[in-house]
Amino acid sequence: MAQNVEAALPDKYKNMSEWYTEILERAEVIDIRYGVKGFIVYRPFGMILMKNIIKLFEEELEKTGHKPFLFPVVIPERNLRMEKEHIKGFEGEVFWIEKGGYTPLEERLALRPTSETAIYPIYALWFSSYKELPFKGYQTCAVYRYETKATRPLLRGREFLWIETHNVYFTEKEARDQTVEDAEIFYKVATEKLGIPFLHLKREEYDKFPGAVDTYAFDTLLPDGRVLQIGTTHYLGTNFTKVFNVVVHDEEGNLVNPHSTCYGIGLSRILASILLIHGDEYGAVLPFDIAPTQIVIIPIYKAGFENKEIDKYCNEIHESLKNEGYRVIFDNSEKTPGEKYYYYDMRGVPFRIEIGPKEVQTSKVTVFRRDTRSRETIPLEQLKEYIVKTKDEILKNLREKAEKRLKDNIIEARTKEELIEAFKKEGRKIYKVFFCGRKECADEIKSVLEGLETRGTPINEKGEGPCVWCGEPGHICYLAKAY
Amino acid sequence: MAQNVEAALPDKYKNMSEWYTEILERAEVIDIRYGVKGFIVYRPFGMILMKNIIKLFEEELEKTGHKPFLFPVVIPERNLRMEKEHIKGFEGEVFWIEKGGYTPLEERLALRPTSETAIYPIYALWFSSYKELPFKGYQTCAVYRYETKATRPLLRGREFLWIETHNVYFTEKEARDQTVEDAEIFYKVATEKLGIPFLHLKREEYDKFPGAVDTYAFDTLLPDGRVLQIGTTHYLGTNFTKVFNVVVHDEEGNLVNPHSTCYGIGLSRILASILLIHGDEYGAVLPFDIAPTQIVIIPIYKAGFENKEIDKYCNEIHESLKNEGYRVIFDNSEKTPGEKYYYYDMRGVPFRIEIGPKEVQTSKVTVFRRDTRSRETIPLEQLKEYIVKTKDEILKNLREKAEKRLKDNIIEARTKEELIEAFKKEGRKIYKVFFCGRKECADEIKSVLEGLETRGTPINEKGEGPCVWCGEPGHICYLAKAY
Repeated sequence: MAQNVEAALPDKYKNMSEWYTEILERAEVIDIRYGVKGFIVYRPFGMILMKNIIKLFEEELEKTGHKPFLFPVVIPERNLRMEKEHIKGFEGEVFWIEKGGYTPLEERLALRPTSETAIYPIYALWFSSYKELPFKGYQTCAVYRYETKATRPLLRGREFLWIETHNVYFTEKEARDQTVEDAEIFYKVATEKLGIPFLHLKREEYDKFPGAVDTYAFDTLLPDGRVLQIGTTHYLGTNFTKVFNVVVHDEEGNLVNPHSTCYGIGLSRILASILLIHGDEYGAVLPFDIAPTQIVIIPIYKAGFENKEIDKYCNEIHESLKNEGYRVIFDNSEKTPGEKYYYYDMRGVPFRIEIGPKEVQTSKVTVFRRDTRSRETIPLEQLKEYIVKTKDEILKNLREKAEKRLKDNIIEARTKEELIEAFKKEGRKIYKVFFCGRKECADEIKSVLEGLETRGTPINEKGEGPCVWCGEPGHICYLAKAY
Repeated sequence: MAQNVEAALPDKYKNMSEWYTEILERAEVIDIRYGVKGFIVYRPFGMILMKNIIKLFEEELEKTGHKPFLFPVVIPERNLRMEKEHIKGFEGEVFWIEKGGYTPLEERLALRPTSETAIYPIYALWFSSYKELPFKGYQTCAVYRYETKATRPLLRGREFLWIETHNVYFTEKEARDQTVEDAEIFYKVATEKLGIPFLHLKREEYDKFPGAVDTYAFDTLLPDGRVLQIGTTHYLGTNFTKVFNVVVHDEEGNLVNPHSTCYGIGLSRILASILLIHGDEYGAVLPFDIAPTQIVIIPIYKAGFENKEIDKYCNEIHESLKNEGYRVIFDNSEKTPGEKYYYYDMRGVPFRIEIGPKEVQTSKVTVFRRDTRSRETIPLEQLKEYIVKTKDEILKNLREKAEKRLKDNIIEARTKEELIEAFKKEGRKIYKVFFCGRKECADEIKSVLEGLETRGTPINEKGEGPCVWCGEPGHICYLAKAY
């Protein structure tokens, strides 16, 4: 895995696709050479990063009363077929197992594309009284969809990692409130801890999760101007509890179907977003908390100065930072400092501590900050305080840049002419318009404006006006090309 | 989920099967009603327990330099067929995916029964020099085997959870040493942290992992006298690196195939072992470190004494134990104390703190210890110290009992007559004999002695003598009926 210093990555805003392919390989995030379309290998760097992201979401889910469980990866065909809209939505993209060993199975088994139809038949067994509700459960797992569209590593795969919650409530209000809590959880982790801003949207009627009453989605903006759905939460009403006969008795003893929600956190896509949104021409730029290596110490040996002195000084710093609980490496391998810089920059290590003779002699450290690429020499005794303070600044910096870019890329248009004109001039951006809600208009917009889709109406902003396309009464809606 | 106090569980030594079925249901460990043979649902209690077990193993693997990765669940048929012994061993028990949506796949995909054939083609791309070795990687995942034998929840399923490591070394010695380290890791977690003793055995030639040079296994003893393989580690020689063309150059620039090992930690079976080995007629008995709830506080209200006083006292204890980082519950629900005792006993909560008027008035706490079912009243100020000390005692007690039982259940036999006589008298136990190593003898023993199998030769004990069955020269070997 010895790597020499290679050329910088291309500009991600000009050539996102090449930038992305390069970083996945050079930082050893994933391996795309598995040989089965839509399936990738998480390499150690990518997997550690993924585990750190998972931990943040699971902690937040557990804080809000969600319990982990794990359902099988296979779903019997009869279960999958029970909810009519649901099977219509997924039938074309399900992997089917038809044989075990040499024996045809009695019933075909689907690899889960999502787990409602695995879970609800069991919920029917678990609950019998309103007193047992609410029930909030989640699983972290992979799901499988036989995508017919072009697949892209982490962005659109046939196997992808996610967290799915499946919650059951006695009342509609509680269930609807859950979709709000889900958005809060998403904000707390994605934005506040990972620096990823997103649009919180209610999807249009024709764009809902198959079987849902209402679908809310979290879309983030990628460097090429397309948006990426990184999470969704759905109010399912009593659609699934009815079909799967989940019944509880209320206080008077009447039997009723409870209300339910599901929530999908797109882990693979969130990992991709972190790389794409924060990265630069030197590689990944990572928030401190999730970085697989948080600090690297690099000795700068000089002819005429005792290397052992430098190593000793580095070792002391290494020990002291390890004792703080940081993931820190002291790299005194034979590679040149330049090769090491290249290697750790590519992997987004937030702090690099460079130690040469001068640092040893003056009891100082030179700290390189990955996000701003700036160097600072500070007294060794201030190092710990510097890291505590600066790691938060890094996150703030990454988040503010990303939030500004999202805001700056939203363009308003009031009429068809304005929209067409703006799209000609600006190309792939997010367009804020009024929209009538009819699929016919959405289809025309998509066809005329090179794939621009209606992404839904923002949750935190109300407004009415004539549809940008047909002039009929409409609501606020964002348009964007999506992955 | 309201439960009344039910009858105690049966004696697990007399009727393990019923005891086991009952505890899985009453403690809500798993749900066996999923409706697909060999597939089960991990309920929150079981899943939290599983996550705690996984954490212990992953920590130990990472301490010994293993890095996490994740390979796809599907393996292309051509890969699976490359190693001749391997496919022979697994072909009959692979689930095949042949269709995506409505489209037949170009190549059949197997659900991974184990991941060698997924991983080695990628290892061929990752390594080119001896300098890049050793490489130690692991994944925590589910594997799939179309078992034709009777399935049993957690003990033998068609989907089960495990950790698999796949390590590559330049030299044979390093690879062989890895199988020793694997056993040490297993001992550190299974025995020292979970209280599960095991026999460390080298499997007979005809009993090896398909494609391995040497197979080492960890067998534990269940209450019914059968043994359960809960882990294995294999020295694979260069079998897999040759077939999959994993090649590195050595110091002189020659191209050579490195040596490799794989190691499987049977998570589902370890969970079952913990329940079966430590449990009693009141339910699960859990080591403190992995217990989903470690301490439960139960108020014992009395007529004529202010309930609020008791609640206040309980709340203070609750807060103070939470601050210590313990997983602690204060249960002041409307259930009777008896119902609560039943509920938490079933789930193996190590400490139950009972607080009545007397405890409040005297600043004391009554602590019930789950493993010994003994009560002690101690001053509140000594509680923390008591828990720190006693949680280790619990583990020690569980471990010593399990170790004694394993030891007491090993019976030596020197001749065929002695063995048959002992088996008639003792039934399902572990028999220590000399064995010639020939499959013919093993098959005869199995057929004559109701399924008694050769489980291999102990690693830490050498000895030679005439085969218990045929009299030819033999080595020490354990015989037992296995799951």
